[in-house]
Parts: sequence; C-alpha cells; structure tokens
Amino acid sequence: MTFADMTPDRYPAILENASARSRFLLVCEHASHAIPGRWGDLGLPEELRQAHIAWDPGALGLSRGLARRLDAGLVHAPVSRLVYDCNRAPDQPGAMAERSEMHEIPGNRRLSPEERAARTAAIYAPFHADLRAEIVRRLAQGVPPVLVTIHSFTPVWHGKPRAVEFGIIHDHDPALALAVLEESRDSGLVCGLNEPYSAADDVTHTLRLQALPYGLANVMLEIRNDLIATPEAEEAMADRLAPILARALGSLAAPAMAG
Amino acid sequence: MTFADMTPDRYPAILENASARSRFLLVCEHASHAIPGRWGDLGLPEELRQAHIAWDPGALGLSRGLARRLDAGLVHAPVSRLVYDCNRAPDQPGAMAERSEMHEIPGNRRLSPEERAARTAAIYAPFHADLRAEIVRRLAQGVPPVLVTIHSFTPVWHGKPRAVEFGIIHDHDPALALAVLEESRDSGLVCGLNEPYSAADDVTHTLRLQALPYGLANVMLEIRNDLIATPEAEEAMADRLAPILARALGSLAAPAMAG
Repeated sequence: MTFADMTPDRYPAILENASARSRFLLVCEHASHAIPGRWGDLGLPEELRQAHIAWDPGALGLSRGLARRLDAGLVHAPVSRLVYDCNRAPDQPGAMAERSEMHEIPGNRRLSPEERAARTAAIYAPFHADLRAEIVRRLAQGVPPVLVTIHSFTPVWHGKPRAVEFGIIHDHDPALALAVLEESRDSGLVCGLNEPYSAADDVTHTLRLQALPYGLANVMLEIRNDLIATPEAEEAMADRLAPILARALGSLAAPAMAG
Repeated sequence: MTFADMTPDRYPAILENASARSRFLLVCEHASHAIPGRWGDLGLPEELRQAHIAWDPGALGLSRGLARRLDAGLVHAPVSRLVYDCNRAPDQPGAMAERSEMHEIPGNRRLSPEERAARTAAIYAPFHADLRAEIVRRLAQGVPPVLVTIHSFTPVWHGKPRAVEFGIIHDHDPALALAVLEESRDSGLVCGLNEPYSAADDVTHTLRLQALPYGLANVMLEIRNDLIATPEAEEAMADRLAPILARALGSLAAPAMAG
C-alpha cells in the first residue's frame, strides 16, 4: 500500500515568497490560532482560543515583515498549537497539551492513541514534510538555506514579569545564535541567550529535525509579544531585526569565504 | 501558496505490513532498480541498470523475510538509486551520482539545478516524508519504532574481495548496533562493526534524519549480496538474522525495564 491511502484530512504548510532569493528561510510554527471544525472549540471559550496559548501573537506579522526585508522564504503552519504544536515531537506532552500555563484544555484530555495519531498525520507530518521539501529543493539547487524560526512569548508568565525582550535560542549548533547575539548589542533590546526558553525546555524540535541533519545554519528567535502587538509594531520590530539577521549571517559566511 | 501546487510527479514510499505489531520498522532505501520512463535509461545498458550500482540485490527479499519473522513494518523506495539515492542528502555527490564504482552514469552528468531539484522533489522528499509519517504515527500512539535499515554490498569492490559478510553500522547512537554485534557472535557470519562502510562514508543519512531526532533505537545492516542471491538464500538469511535482531532489542529494553 502507499501512504496516500491512509492519510486523513491534511493541513499543509503555507509557503510565502517562494521565489525569494536570499538564503534565509523563516519558519513560524505558531502562526495561526485557527481550529478546524472537526476539533470544535476544544472546550475553550473564544477568548482563550485567541490567546497566546493558541498561537504566538505577532509572530506571523513579524515574520512577513522580515521576509520582505530579507527577501526570504517563509513557511508557516495553518492550525493552532492547541490542536497540535508543530514544534513538538508527537511523543512529547506539549504536542497536544492537556494544559497550557494555568489553563486546562478539555478537548485534549486523555486523547486516545488513534486521535493522537490522527492529529499527527493531519497537522505535524504535512507541516514538516512541506518544510523539508522547501529545504531540500534549495539544497538540491546548491543553495543551503539558513533556518530561522520565529516565536513570541508573553510579558508575564505564571504571574511573573519577564525582562527579556529578544530571546536567541540554539540547539547543538550555536554558531548563528551567537552571531545574532553579537549583532544585537546595539539593538536597544534586552537580549537573552537561551531565554526565556532553551533546548532543555524541548523548544528546538524544528531545528533538530530540519536544520541539524543537513548542517544548516539555524537559530530560534523569541520576541516578547507586547513589542509586536500591532501591525505597526511588527513592522518596527522587523526594521530592527532584519539588519541584525543579515549582519549575523554575513559574519558567519565571511570566514568560510576567506578560508 | 501550498506545496501541493509545486509538486511534480511523486514516487511515494511503499509500506508493507502496516498492521505489524512489533516495534521494528525496517527500511530499504535501495529496494528497486526501476527507472521511471521520464529518466529513460540514463545512458546505461540494461545489464548495468540491473546491477548493484542500481540497487541492493537481495535487500528487499531479505527485508520481507525479516518483516514476516519479526512481525515488522517495512518501508521501501520504488525507484533506482541511479535516479536518486534516498540514503543521501540532496547536496551530497552520491545523491544523483555521476559515477558509481568504475561506471560513469551519463544521464547524471552535469545535472542542472532544476533537474536536481525535480528529482529531489519526486523521489527523496516523498520517501522520507512517508517514512516519517509512519514513524510519527507510531510515536503518537506511544510505541516508538526501532529503525533498522537494510542494505547489501558486493563481494568484490574495486577488484578486491571483501571478507566481511554482515556489516553492522551506527551513527551517533551505537546502542542497538553494539547489541546486534554482541548477539551475532555465534551466527557463523563474519561480522564487522562499521564495515564495509561507516558513518564517515556518509551512509547513515536515513538514521540521522529519521531516528536520531526522535531518540529512536536504530541500526544500519549490510549483507554481502552473494549470501542473499536467491529467494531461498534470502529466506535462510532472514532465519539467521531475525532472532539476532529480536534478542538485540530485548537486551536494550531489559535494563530500562529493570531500572
């Protein structure tokens, strides 16, 4: 049998700027708070279904702003992380979380193995297959992409305010993260390396799955969401971060070109 | 746009024993010497298109024998490695090799970036997406698969005979490979750890891509192809290797259960 025979509904990744010419490939796993009809409201009120537990507010707008400025491709997920968090492997508790921060998610309680498999097949597998397809298309053409995943985080977490504004996170290969940190010195942002989360919090799944096996330069970025709360703020943040990313990549590429 | 819009012909992976109940998931990247019509004969005579440069003779038959004995799933590729070698990343020379052993492959000479991308999209991307889909389906159901890739190699290489009969190869995680080696002691086969190839030869791509990011137990097996040259020989080898694999997995699982 072929796999197409057993695939249920699929929610493919969305690609923007397919013909972009820079090496940057931006990824936004938590771009959408949409919950397709088959999953109803997951037992949550409208307000929570549009809150940060459902998506990363501002991350897609910022990503689009960066994609325009950097001439970068952008891949994003069309479904809320409340249904499946595409930055988590399917055997991790956060993939289909029963709880997020202080909120229970009734529709995710005691999921059957079949339902877990169905969501994984419908959302996670297509997202990562499509992202991989774009990565390997570029590799085959001799232009290895540079993977930048873009997230946002809340100013207050479990009641405590967070000082960090711009988090720069890496997995086993820290090169691009360190370069971004270096280039962010004069950004006016309170920067944190591996803050407010780190690989130990299981947040670098996409980097591990998509960048490390191919040796791609990669970094995960986290922006405090009060700084990208309006379209204007998203654009202003894109103005700040685009040159930082461009200089960081340049600083990585330079030694290889000289050597 | 979605990715389906830009996908050309696709050659999906083939899944056998989808309802198998053991944790073993067998993978055969070089199962077929088929060359779909759009790639013609690649400038090679029939004889070479059916030789080991086109596939791993005996590997699929052995894999099927093992799948029956181990109650294991089996995923294999439907297209010759002469068109695309699914055990190579698309930026590696061996992915669409211009040369294999002493043979030039005229149809792979100076491929354009577009043709490299087209083959990658048609063969490599679907194969690994489908394999991943099966892996993550099992992970979502709480039963992490154990990945075993199965290959064969020639008794003579560049004019030199090879003594090794059964090669056991690992990447960063050697646990299952070492267990298989241990359990092979009384097999009567001349065994080699990381022979006749090793990760340094770029042969562990599938393990790196599919097993390591999920922490799955994994190993690559290489059988000398003169030992699996007939259906009867494939069955006899499956008889020898199936209990070795079962015991090796058991020896891995035991300490965790005790601990």
